[in-house]
Amino acid sequence: MDENTQIAGTQEKESIVYIGKKPAMNYVLAVVTQFNSGVPTVTIKARGNAISRAVDVKEIVINKFLPNVKERGITTSSEELTNEDGTRSKVSAIQIVLSK
Amino acid sequence: MDENTQIAGTQEKESIVYIGKKPAMNYVLAVVTQFNSGVPTVTIKARGNAISRAVDVKEIVINKFLPNVKERGITTSSEELTNEDGTRSKVSAIQIVLSK
Repeated sequence: MDENTQIAGTQEKESIVYIGKKPAMNYVLAVVTQFNSGVPTVTIKARGNAISRAVDVKEIVINKFLPNVKERGITTSSEELTNEDGTRSKVSAIQIVLSK
Repeated sequence: MDENTQIAGTQEKESIVYIGKKPAMNYVLAVVTQFNSGVPTVTIKARGNAISRAVDVKEIVINKFLPNVKERGITTSSEELTNEDGTRSKVSAIQIVLSK
């Protein structure tokens, strides 16, 4: 999992905010900043244990900062990762699409 | 969060499986057992850190055990809890509806 607050596709019609291990408020700020810069759709993505934080981020963004933002859908999936020792393991992922 | 694998509404049309702190496979077994006993709709519910495990349970049930089960919707919410010292704090929750 990345340690930085990554934002892909800035200045486009759709942004993706990847949730990592930092406090939820870091990612909330990233999402709010995207919407305030005019991006109409922001997707929150997380894997593994960060999934809980992704839900926190969505709830805080809508309930505290941007009540006019709507959830457009939540999807989950299972991704296969290759470990350092070459073995493969599965990890769950979530994708939450928000738009104004 | 409860320490038991709680199953509410057994023998009815809809069952709820609450995800706690036990390994995901315990809850996978609970969901599969419900479907195999004839219940058509099983709802997986979790709060806080257990949300990630709820997604794991859903992915394992569908990908490994019951490929004919479909996801009917994922909703998230924010619940307010009263702590032991009387203060109140918010916790995110997820609800995943599966049916045959």
